[in-house]
Amino acid sequence: MKYADRMKNMEDKALLALMELAEAKDVISFSGGFPSPETYPLEDIRESFYHVLEHEAKEALSYSSTRGFARLRELIAERMEQQFRVPCEADEIVITSGSQQALDMSGLLFIDKGDIVLFETPSYLGALNALKAYEAELVEVETDDDGIGIDALKQALDTYGERVKLVYVIPDFQNPTSRCWSQDRRIAFMDLMAQYDIPVLEDAAYSELTFKEEKETPLLGYDRKGQVIYCGTFSKNFCPGLRIAWIAARKDIIEQYLVLKSFVDLSSTAITQRQMAYYLDHYDLDAHVSKIITLYKERRDLMLQVVAREFPKEVKYNKPMGGLFLWMTLPEGKDTKELLLRALAEGVAFVPGGSFYPGAAKNNEMRINFSNMTEAEIVEGMTRLGRITRDYLLE
Amino acid sequence: MKYADRMKNMEDKALLALMELAEAKDVISFSGGFPSPETYPLEDIRESFYHVLEHEAKEALSYSSTRGFARLRELIAERMEQQFRVPCEADEIVITSGSQQALDMSGLLFIDKGDIVLFETPSYLGALNALKAYEAELVEVETDDDGIGIDALKQALDTYGERVKLVYVIPDFQNPTSRCWSQDRRIAFMDLMAQYDIPVLEDAAYSELTFKEEKETPLLGYDRKGQVIYCGTFSKNFCPGLRIAWIAARKDIIEQYLVLKSFVDLSSTAITQRQMAYYLDHYDLDAHVSKIITLYKERRDLMLQVVAREFPKEVKYNKPMGGLFLWMTLPEGKDTKELLLRALAEGVAFVPGGSFYPGAAKNNEMRINFSNMTEAEIVEGMTRLGRITRDYLLE
Repeated sequence: MKYADRMKNMEDKALLALMELAEAKDVISFSGGFPSPETYPLEDIRESFYHVLEHEAKEALSYSSTRGFARLRELIAERMEQQFRVPCEADEIVITSGSQQALDMSGLLFIDKGDIVLFETPSYLGALNALKAYEAELVEVETDDDGIGIDALKQALDTYGERVKLVYVIPDFQNPTSRCWSQDRRIAFMDLMAQYDIPVLEDAAYSELTFKEEKETPLLGYDRKGQVIYCGTFSKNFCPGLRIAWIAARKDIIEQYLVLKSFVDLSSTAITQRQMAYYLDHYDLDAHVSKIITLYKERRDLMLQVVAREFPKEVKYNKPMGGLFLWMTLPEGKDTKELLLRALAEGVAFVPGGSFYPGAAKNNEMRINFSNMTEAEIVEGMTRLGRITRDYLLE
Repeated sequence: MKYADRMKNMEDKALLALMELAEAKDVISFSGGFPSPETYPLEDIRESFYHVLEHEAKEALSYSSTRGFARLRELIAERMEQQFRVPCEADEIVITSGSQQALDMSGLLFIDKGDIVLFETPSYLGALNALKAYEAELVEVETDDDGIGIDALKQALDTYGERVKLVYVIPDFQNPTSRCWSQDRRIAFMDLMAQYDIPVLEDAAYSELTFKEEKETPLLGYDRKGQVIYCGTFSKNFCPGLRIAWIAARKDIIEQYLVLKSFVDLSSTAITQRQMAYYLDHYDLDAHVSKIITLYKERRDLMLQVVAREFPKEVKYNKPMGGLFLWMTLPEGKDTKELLLRALAEGVAFVPGGSFYPGAAKNNEMRINFSNMTEAEIVEGMTRLGRITRDYLLE
């Protein structure tokens, strides 16, 4: 039995096995990238399910349209306008089963073997692996705190020419660094991209999780040519288990995604789409998002306090202004995979930074989630990890 | 913006547009392939959702594991043993978002550009298109009422040699013909396949919908080498909107699917997996299936009566012994796409047979669903279609 060529070297299996250890019950795990389940607005969600099951049960248990439930698409379009000042219509949207499916379908839509995808570095490997499955060559572009480097990007675009089929970016509080692109950088990026006929895949998973006063305008808002494919989701600001996300793009591009959606799973789960629409129509998602932002900000602050107190000065880190992650850098030559082994032995988990580089990885970085553990666990876990790190750096 | 090569000639758009007409409210549509929503056991489904939302809400709204909810996989394994006498374990199963996703991932797993997929003819184009998206070459194998032709299959296997990467079959009441392979043919097929190291993709969507006394053993039950990849689903015997299906296969193959599942959508909807597990644990799916089989058999009988009375003798058809479809053949030279245009003008829809041949199509066949319309609609719709067919054949 012969697997397709793409299955070769697909995954860092050793790391996967290690990460499974992080799932053990007694581990304080800073490795996930989830919202905190205790924040779910359970009563409102229950009421929405009950309503759907009482009044729309037959429709909710039958196939949804491939495009997705019409009322949900309308509500998402309204929300994009209200939240991000981006005009959007219901027929410029297709519902996907999580953002991951949007990324997978983007590979299917744009990538032939050997094509090039440009991306920020470090970046979300789940997206990059999905694109690599279509035998894309992944080429990283130097990135600083304001976003992807414009000169570096221009150079890559010109060097690789027509081989570049996609630019994948996460401008808002990206996974893993929580970096948020500045407005100037967004404008400069779109000005440059407008000179090329290449789609921009904008992963907006964390865009609502901001601790700043104002939300940044998404790249879609600076898109004059209709070249941005915007991937939104309710997984980070609401509940990931519903698997409700969407692509917003130019109508003719959406039509292509629809063909693929019919191949990859026909349609997304009907009942969760209707539940989500009912929730948006009758409850206050903005209030929920405010609540979790306040909580996550408190947890970030607490984590930064513990880190300042417990970690050696050689460890560098940012102050996340949104998102779910703290990104820490050990001195050169140190290896966070080695640190993880020691941490797991003492019941603490995180994700080594090498997991966010598809090619040659920097090994001295790590991603620490601050949204998902309680205050007590943050203090206990980060105190332990601080001590383990001190000991490791002393060797 | 350049799409991947696979997007060329992907769909018969003209037919898609035509089929959208079939969705209009006042059309009597025999075009769907769904169970009848009035049969859903709504009270039991509601109770299961209520239970999950009361007692497992946080888990049900968080990410499921990539493999799928453990209790659901156990129950599916038990059910495969109880229904089909096929030993199966929970870790030989991965939950998929509908069978369509299992088919899509099979393309991703096995197909490189130019590889060959062998299949029965006619067959389910949704599967074949999903495989074609991975740039497979689709090669049909002559099939008779007992199943795929063994000599023809052997010839194809030997002609194409190592280029053949997959054999896709639907042995039970297949879409579109409702043909069910005989036991002898199943054994002969697996005997032949055992001589090759090629995976068999067994699509078992309709396997429980049998009007016969005994269920046939699936190919998986005759599999000595672990080469069968079995795709089961709750979409046809229960509710398609839940999007719950599964792959059962050898453990090492399941591990490969798991890697891909993490790329295509991370995990399936958590709440519907838990609802399905609770339903299977506390209610009687067998009793539900018996009930819908009785109903569909009555509708099949009624449809055959109307057809015998209203259709001209030149129109040939089988007597479906299970599944959801009646397959009808007009005299050579007639075109069921032309017939569909006339039928739509009088408010009746079906699927022209050409939609089930990926290559050179026979154009004089059609698929008529008998599960989804009420008795009154069957009489009215098939009487109309009989008259329209008579008029068309007289020309």
